[in-house]
Amino acid sequence: MSRPLGIVNVPIGKDGTPGVEPRHLDVLRREAPSWEWREVTEKEAFRALLPDADVALVWRFPRSLADQAGKLRLLSTPSAGHDWIQMPPRPGLTIAHGAFHGELMAESVLGAMLAFTRGIKEAIDRKDEPWPRAEVTAGMRPIRGSHAVILGFGHVGKWIGRLLKPFGVAVTGVNRSNLERPDYFEATDSVVDMNGLDDALARADHVISVLPGSADTDRILDERRLGLLGPNAYVYNVGRGNAIDLDALAALLHGGKIAGAFLDVFPVEPLPDDAPIRKCPNLVIMPHVTAFGPNYIDLYIGEVLEHLKKLGQAR
Amino acid sequence: MSRPLGIVNVPIGKDGTPGVEPRHLDVLRREAPSWEWREVTEKEAFRALLPDADVALVWRFPRSLADQAGKLRLLSTPSAGHDWIQMPPRPGLTIAHGAFHGELMAESVLGAMLAFTRGIKEAIDRKDEPWPRAEVTAGMRPIRGSHAVILGFGHVGKWIGRLLKPFGVAVTGVNRSNLERPDYFEATDSVVDMNGLDDALARADHVISVLPGSADTDRILDERRLGLLGPNAYVYNVGRGNAIDLDALAALLHGGKIAGAFLDVFPVEPLPDDAPIRKCPNLVIMPHVTAFGPNYIDLYIGEVLEHLKKLGQAR
Repeated sequence: MSRPLGIVNVPIGKDGTPGVEPRHLDVLRREAPSWEWREVTEKEAFRALLPDADVALVWRFPRSLADQAGKLRLLSTPSAGHDWIQMPPRPGLTIAHGAFHGELMAESVLGAMLAFTRGIKEAIDRKDEPWPRAEVTAGMRPIRGSHAVILGFGHVGKWIGRLLKPFGVAVTGVNRSNLERPDYFEATDSVVDMNGLDDALARADHVISVLPGSADTDRILDERRLGLLGPNAYVYNVGRGNAIDLDALAALLHGGKIAGAFLDVFPVEPLPDDAPIRKCPNLVIMPHVTAFGPNYIDLYIGEVLEHLKKLGQAR
Repeated sequence: MSRPLGIVNVPIGKDGTPGVEPRHLDVLRREAPSWEWREVTEKEAFRALLPDADVALVWRFPRSLADQAGKLRLLSTPSAGHDWIQMPPRPGLTIAHGAFHGELMAESVLGAMLAFTRGIKEAIDRKDEPWPRAEVTAGMRPIRGSHAVILGFGHVGKWIGRLLKPFGVAVTGVNRSNLERPDYFEATDSVVDMNGLDDALARADHVISVLPGSADTDRILDERRLGLLGPNAYVYNVGRGNAIDLDALAALLHGGKIAGAFLDVFPVEPLPDDAPIRKCPNLVIMPHVTAFGPNYIDLYIGEVLEHLKKLGQAR
């Protein structure tokens, strides 16, 4: 009986995207020695091996490959975004998205909130001015006592909330269905469904979207809902770029109707050079990196091994 | 019997420094109605009233005024820095420094650490580049699992440590005498005296000075000690500017021998236009504002009222 086959197509990107390196394959071969592990970098080679593969590790999986994947028991991606895996579910197949992003993304979101409210972005912008004390302090305030609304309150959203609580921030999580309160919640905190979104936005100092990309989440923050925000509110998007109406957001930023925005994701990436949003004041543009860390793929491989254990137990 | 006199000389600065506003005097008069409260903005008027004053609220108090302050029972400043009050201690006089800075400064320090390690400073610096993904991710890492050394582990230092723990950062506090462990410490954390400083620096990812200005703290981070830092280490100074040898720090930054620095305080403030440190890469210069918040003086007046209560009880 031949060994089960795992194929690995998680390449390092030229743009800094992390990927599987030889040391990660070493870990797979050492920790899952009953498996055969093949790294494939060419699309055609991947397609050729796919019908024999029990496990595939990929960044993306297009619908066009679904018919070739009849033997597959585990389809795994480091990405947290469900839009990148277009494989229809079927019995006996586990489709696994990375669940390790929360702790990395939460650090990025906290950093963005504090860069805005503690004058750090302003000081970096004004580094060529001699001593811009009045300008830097003008928008400074503590995040303690503020109110953060987290749109999409799953694994990542709950990590963000967890790190906000020690700063004394009141948290409102917004979720379509699961309204379970995490164990770290206090009396100031709540989870609401879409019916509670407008009220939460009107009281928000920080609005953080971690929503996945789908037709359901398209422009959830549209012109009307963005218009509910107060002049001290900041908007953060670390989910997918479809969730925010960028034209409406740009108008608010240009008019000083909100305090600022931090965008890590965009409807088209890379963000085009001539995208109008680039001209806005009080905006930080990140090149889709808030989940990045040098340990990114290490954390991913750890999760793959957990899934392999479950497959082994299931056999 | 005339009412006890409180004189208030805590003016708002043109540079954004907060100060006592009419609403704060209203609070004093409402909460301490048995006192007479006089706001004085001119130096001469302050000097004239000082011999009759039971309480003085000031930013700074020069040694030359000490002989005029024979009746004083409380000398209070919002500043945390003991160098600004040059009044010799005597029985019956309470000299009170603001102790409310910790929570504001800790937010600023966390923001600086995350702005560096989560690519936020790099993205702001490169805002005119189209999609600098490789450049932004190059230095990105989590603060989880890192080691922070806090030089000066009093009220402010302990606040910084408190906010670092939920991020999974190992904390070493450095203090001359009081080596008491705060209740939030875990097995990874310790408080050491000056004998433990060199070892702590050699293992540091983040070195944060909150040291007060005094002859004792002059250039504690000198060329030799800064040389112990590794290439991934960041240096933060939010205490007083005398603690770091800026020439040595500049050489390390220019040579890429450390990862970066965040300086809020300087030997001379405002930092001169031609100060060589301004030319360094990977440096954030803040105009002495990390403790700023719109609630700064409110927190201060709250502490003043606590001191007045104690005076009342003591009479």
